[in-house]
Amino acid sequence: MAKPNRRDIFKMGAAAGATAIAASARAAAQPAAAPPADDSWSNALGPGVDSRPYGRPSRFEKDVVRRYVPWLSPTRDADASFTPLQDQPGIITSNGLFFERYHAGRPTIDPDRYRLMISGLVRKPLLLTLDQLMRFPSVSRIHFIECPANGATEWPAAQLNSLQLTHGMVGCALWTGVKLSTLLDEVGLLPEAKWLLASGSDGAHMDRSLPLEKCLDDCIVAYGQNGEAIRPEQGYPVRLVVPGWQGNVNIKWLRQLQLGKTPWITREETSEYSELLPSGKALGFTWVMDAKSVITFPCPEKPLTGGPGFYEIRGLAWSGRGRIKQVDVSLDGGVNYRRAKLDEPVLSKCLTRFTLPWRWDGKPALIQSRVTDETGYVQPTIAQKHKFWGNDPVYENNSIQTWQILASGAVNNVQIS
Amino acid sequence: MAKPNRRDIFKMGAAAGATAIAASARAAAQPAAAPPADDSWSNALGPGVDSRPYGRPSRFEKDVVRRYVPWLSPTRDADASFTPLQDQPGIITSNGLFFERYHAGRPTIDPDRYRLMISGLVRKPLLLTLDQLMRFPSVSRIHFIECPANGATEWPAAQLNSLQLTHGMVGCALWTGVKLSTLLDEVGLLPEAKWLLASGSDGAHMDRSLPLEKCLDDCIVAYGQNGEAIRPEQGYPVRLVVPGWQGNVNIKWLRQLQLGKTPWITREETSEYSELLPSGKALGFTWVMDAKSVITFPCPEKPLTGGPGFYEIRGLAWSGRGRIKQVDVSLDGGVNYRRAKLDEPVLSKCLTRFTLPWRWDGKPALIQSRVTDETGYVQPTIAQKHKFWGNDPVYENNSIQTWQILASGAVNNVQIS
Repeated sequence: MAKPNRRDIFKMGAAAGATAIAASARAAAQPAAAPPADDSWSNALGPGVDSRPYGRPSRFEKDVVRRYVPWLSPTRDADASFTPLQDQPGIITSNGLFFERYHAGRPTIDPDRYRLMISGLVRKPLLLTLDQLMRFPSVSRIHFIECPANGATEWPAAQLNSLQLTHGMVGCALWTGVKLSTLLDEVGLLPEAKWLLASGSDGAHMDRSLPLEKCLDDCIVAYGQNGEAIRPEQGYPVRLVVPGWQGNVNIKWLRQLQLGKTPWITREETSEYSELLPSGKALGFTWVMDAKSVITFPCPEKPLTGGPGFYEIRGLAWSGRGRIKQVDVSLDGGVNYRRAKLDEPVLSKCLTRFTLPWRWDGKPALIQSRVTDETGYVQPTIAQKHKFWGNDPVYENNSIQTWQILASGAVNNVQIS
Repeated sequence: MAKPNRRDIFKMGAAAGATAIAASARAAAQPAAAPPADDSWSNALGPGVDSRPYGRPSRFEKDVVRRYVPWLSPTRDADASFTPLQDQPGIITSNGLFFERYHAGRPTIDPDRYRLMISGLVRKPLLLTLDQLMRFPSVSRIHFIECPANGATEWPAAQLNSLQLTHGMVGCALWTGVKLSTLLDEVGLLPEAKWLLASGSDGAHMDRSLPLEKCLDDCIVAYGQNGEAIRPEQGYPVRLVVPGWQGNVNIKWLRQLQLGKTPWITREETSEYSELLPSGKALGFTWVMDAKSVITFPCPEKPLTGGPGFYEIRGLAWSGRGRIKQVDVSLDGGVNYRRAKLDEPVLSKCLTRFTLPWRWDGKPALIQSRVTDETGYVQPTIAQKHKFWGNDPVYENNSIQTWQILASGAVNNVQIS
């Protein structure tokens, strides 16, 4: 179909001049204020340049922060905060805004005292310092990490009128470190070694079992995050990155890698990540994050403030199975779909940005995105998810998100059958 | 040639155990301290999780900072600070560590008062608010920005024994914004329009002339930097990104885009960026950053602390003309070269990470990297550069960098003929 006409993008009427457009575009969002009659905003120098050894955002960006849902957890030790996706312009998540999730607190680790133990069914166990870990051949890869509880509040109904709080347990960064396969090659696996237990340094030394095949594939023992050391919230100084697999196996503050014959069936693997099905049986080891997408503009935090006219719908899509193949956007609640444009590069197990030009006629609309990944997997609706999971699931909510646009330009989180 | 044997990477002798390796590997770099006999470093929880709205690095990373050279400038208003490349694990430069360069101070701009004017030889001039700019169709691209004065101190001789201070006026980020071509299409260019003047909001409203062809190619009017708003040091709230071209044309705190017939020959274009050749003539508009590479490990800040054995040589390469084609590393001062491995993805006008496995025999060595880009351009030696530029150039030092490795593992900045 024909692309919307972008010419005269802000054309609101023949007599509308640029200044009038400025006023009307801003009226809905801001208290009424005349556009400045002068350009003094660009002339203020200040007392000189305080060149900062380590920079920080503009103070005008103070509302771009992680947020959390107080009723989600009884204590702050087992808690989470969410990435403000509504303010993330591209696929990289800023280190200061990357979501947090703590099962048993956050340790403060002195890198000089840090040790990584590799033990169990290996020829030569190792105890590595951080310096020694950094000497190994290294790789650098952009991958998302998503908690499988992302969107958990939305299973029963559309509960939180927010992009950040419904989708913000995901982040994407450039991770640098040593391939786990390199380390396993160094210690030498015994033939009986089939599983690996990765454990971290939080209050419970949280641990997860991983099959050897994945360990030898693309896992990274990482120490770098977007140009600097991993942040304390993301596991300083070392975390495991298991591309495309649920967040909790990407063990933070990694302390030990132990090789064994069978999975350990640890506390987290029974109390949390075994998922009850309607049949009464439980599904274990649901590792791979299924493909998911969401429109990040417009969204509840970012309504349409300029009235009818041209907007660009924007969003993010990702899959734990590989690359995104396509994203389709519906403007009528899933009846018709249009193909969105994907930003290059499209990388495997990584966020991909999509856009769709849209001329909004000012009427209510129901907008959604639906991703298909390279395996052919198609993002399901929440109804389709309930058919499999029943009514009480916690995890795996990768369902299509519908945003309801009102004539006022406000955006609501809704669920439609 | 055969790859160095990585097995037993830390094998220092038959009797060497892991703990002994830990001690020796660290001895050179740290005051003598016994490895911890317990793992109490991993058990300390602290008083609970203070989930931060906006995170910051670990306090143990306090030495990873921008640094500057005091004698480079008489005042702090016209100054620069350098990216600590020795602590940058991959191609992305952390927002807090991205180099600074101020010609006339750093303005503090209220985004609500910000305006972008597009004027001159256009059909319909525009004055855009930030909200309006953000409504346009957008793109997201990873590009480096480098100041052409990067390495300027090294023209006469190897002066600064530092990677950071000789190469740190470069950074790489994911820039999100509106293609300049989109904005120029919106205003409609008159046929006589051939040049564009971009001006910023520093104390001199610094401005540079750009040919229309480049403007219509890949330039971006950017508001996003690595997952958040552009930093004040990099031009908050809006800067121009001119991929592959010298840093100063990537105008920060962008206020105006003016279309005209001929270049303006502004102050910066005469006093600074017209470069005197030995013939007495001056070269103007040397826009494109020639291909360049440098080994980031080892380097003066990061010596070899583990004695003879396996190390991975690491570095960064980039070209203003497009993609890197290959990087070759020499261990003997340029006599013999080996092909380095490039990390994926290899992107155009973007940093590329390269690595080479190396088994150091403990003897002095002279290591260098040499990049070839996709146009066939080969990074020159400093001697080759002097042949063209004479003895007194300031800019364009993209020459091959030699690091001298001493038997002690220390690394010095040297120049060889």
